[in-house]
Amino acid sequence: MRVGVVGIGHGKFGRRNDATVQELAFEPFKEAMEDAGITQKDIDATIIGSSPEYHKQRSLPGVVTEYIGMNPKPAFLTEAACASGSAALYSAYGFIKAGMFNTVAVIGVQKMMELSTTEILALMGRVGDVQWESNFGTTFPGYYAMFARRHMYEYGTQEEQLAQVAVKNHHYGAMNPKARFQKEVTLNKVMHSSMVASPLKVFDCCANADGAACVIVTNDDVARNMSDTPVWLEGVGSATAPFSVLNRPSISSIPSAVEAGRQAYKQAGLVPRLVHVASVHDCFTIGEIMAYEDLGFCEKGDGGLLIEEKQTYKDGTIPINVDGGLKAKGHPVGATGISMAVEAVKQLRGEAGERQVDGAETALTHNVGGIGQYCFVNIYKR
Amino acid sequence: MRVGVVGIGHGKFGRRNDATVQELAFEPFKEAMEDAGITQKDIDATIIGSSPEYHKQRSLPGVVTEYIGMNPKPAFLTEAACASGSAALYSAYGFIKAGMFNTVAVIGVQKMMELSTTEILALMGRVGDVQWESNFGTTFPGYYAMFARRHMYEYGTQEEQLAQVAVKNHHYGAMNPKARFQKEVTLNKVMHSSMVASPLKVFDCCANADGAACVIVTNDDVARNMSDTPVWLEGVGSATAPFSVLNRPSISSIPSAVEAGRQAYKQAGLVPRLVHVASVHDCFTIGEIMAYEDLGFCEKGDGGLLIEEKQTYKDGTIPINVDGGLKAKGHPVGATGISMAVEAVKQLRGEAGERQVDGAETALTHNVGGIGQYCFVNIYKR
Repeated sequence: MRVGVVGIGHGKFGRRNDATVQELAFEPFKEAMEDAGITQKDIDATIIGSSPEYHKQRSLPGVVTEYIGMNPKPAFLTEAACASGSAALYSAYGFIKAGMFNTVAVIGVQKMMELSTTEILALMGRVGDVQWESNFGTTFPGYYAMFARRHMYEYGTQEEQLAQVAVKNHHYGAMNPKARFQKEVTLNKVMHSSMVASPLKVFDCCANADGAACVIVTNDDVARNMSDTPVWLEGVGSATAPFSVLNRPSISSIPSAVEAGRQAYKQAGLVPRLVHVASVHDCFTIGEIMAYEDLGFCEKGDGGLLIEEKQTYKDGTIPINVDGGLKAKGHPVGATGISMAVEAVKQLRGEAGERQVDGAETALTHNVGGIGQYCFVNIYKR
Repeated sequence: MRVGVVGIGHGKFGRRNDATVQELAFEPFKEAMEDAGITQKDIDATIIGSSPEYHKQRSLPGVVTEYIGMNPKPAFLTEAACASGSAALYSAYGFIKAGMFNTVAVIGVQKMMELSTTEILALMGRVGDVQWESNFGTTFPGYYAMFARRHMYEYGTQEEQLAQVAVKNHHYGAMNPKARFQKEVTLNKVMHSSMVASPLKVFDCCANADGAACVIVTNDDVARNMSDTPVWLEGVGSATAPFSVLNRPSISSIPSAVEAGRQAYKQAGLVPRLVHVASVHDCFTIGEIMAYEDLGFCEKGDGGLLIEEKQTYKDGTIPINVDGGLKAKGHPVGATGISMAVEAVKQLRGEAGERQVDGAETALTHNVGGIGQYCFVNIYKR
């Protein structure tokens, strides 16, 4: 049985003081239902991807399903740090494949901006090992700064190459009305932005955001009835890596990404050079460069060159994050994985407007959780 | 394809200052592997049921999978408040049915006792609607006290009948070495314990606890090879109810339990009188009485009589919570649903010792999330 995406919705990412978490969730859910031409009665369950610790309101699937009109159907939440949205999609994929449901709404949603930046940093730090690492002061930018320093040491990667990732992603973010930041930035601006954790500067880091996105997935029978343009989820990969960076053989690669990619490529019967467009987890610019390598879009160590040669722009060999990525869209933790899924479907339908990659027939998403403790890689075909 | 349980493990519930959350998770995982006669290499994925907000350590599936030796295999967490464990089992059931994995470890785990009772009460309150309810002072005991008062008003249920539930569950808790409380209590002691939220007294309320439990589930091919005594998960039900009690037609019943029960009975081809033993969600004594009725073990309104006549004791018409229930075992939120699954398997294997229900061939579990926003009902057969 194939699993198809028949409806997509994407809310505005950014500072959303105008909406509660359930209101945030409803926006893309409504859009996805309209896109699929269905209503609540056609949907069998709701899976929410989110990181609960950011919210004052607990028991999110409860408050959301009531608000969006999905009682009494099943609902629960999945969490895998920054890959929580992809974990929800993975779970929904299982339910469809199992024949337990015909149609599932998967909603990634996060409200973060009610917290101060300091509170968010402290919360994020606790995704690291609290016993041996975060209690001694590690932060998310700190972890990724170590990854970047090591990558520079091993492969000669340059700070300018990191900065070029930011320039590209803001370039495309400027074309995405749902992105938090819709402004181009220059290399000079990135290079001279304030240092956060050397070598990462402010513009090497994605921004926090409130936001939500939704995909409606079905089995192939329903998909063909419901949609003229179903997009098929043909490969799903999921893996974990040692929680503590102390226990990893290398920190210039995310081992869970390599393994999840391997699974997804194998299931989809695809090799990296046959991927036409990809969204990768650029929580920090070094994250995107490691993703190029971990996913086989270039040789290990050549990630810096790939962006320098602009091969990951829309007209390059492998267009990446042409929706702006986490970098420009913002990163509402639980919503990010579903935002990537929405972009994959848009590209394969040919609905991405000025960001459209010509003739895209295959798309890949790469959603990393925490500091690489989780990675989900999905491959879509039209 | 059938889904079978081939391994079970259950840690000691209680104040577990001796163990970190990952250590808590390892205890029953190791026991379950030994029970199934397998090691980590035989297991394809780990699903963790837990309520993350109680823990300083975030990203629990990451820290747990590293510690228990399950990298690089997939892992994530499921959350549905007090039914988080059952949500994990539900998700694992889907993966097995889908053929995505042959064998999945499902671990329910919670560490709560590092927090003060006041902190826990505040956290629990936020499972209610923070915008319209908990901000105005509602607490968990407060919600269930309203349910109890309404049940007394509608059906003439007596405070003594509520207290009899506690007497029964402590009676069986005294026989369960994994229970937090292993002491009998008298009706007089329950009736004269301090008032918490009228009519609920201290002994009408389950206790917080640290704890973990694990089940290993497989498809039928693997199950038959792995185990001489597989227990089959023959019916799974999952439903939601309006989040806010303001929006429910009745508060003397948990509508999600009725719906989840209907699904599970239908799938398993069973009626209530053919259930031989059950674990129900007695977070408060009124919860057990409502469960009797919601699951069809008696007519609506007759729950008080059922316990008064001792029909839910081991030798009654429908033995319920003969492992002590949440009441005596304690309620480490995410672990509770899996603890129920472990008891069902023990009973169907005939391994429950002095708590054994003679000739039990069918077992039911009923795990409520929040104040009834979720319910998962599972039916097992040997």
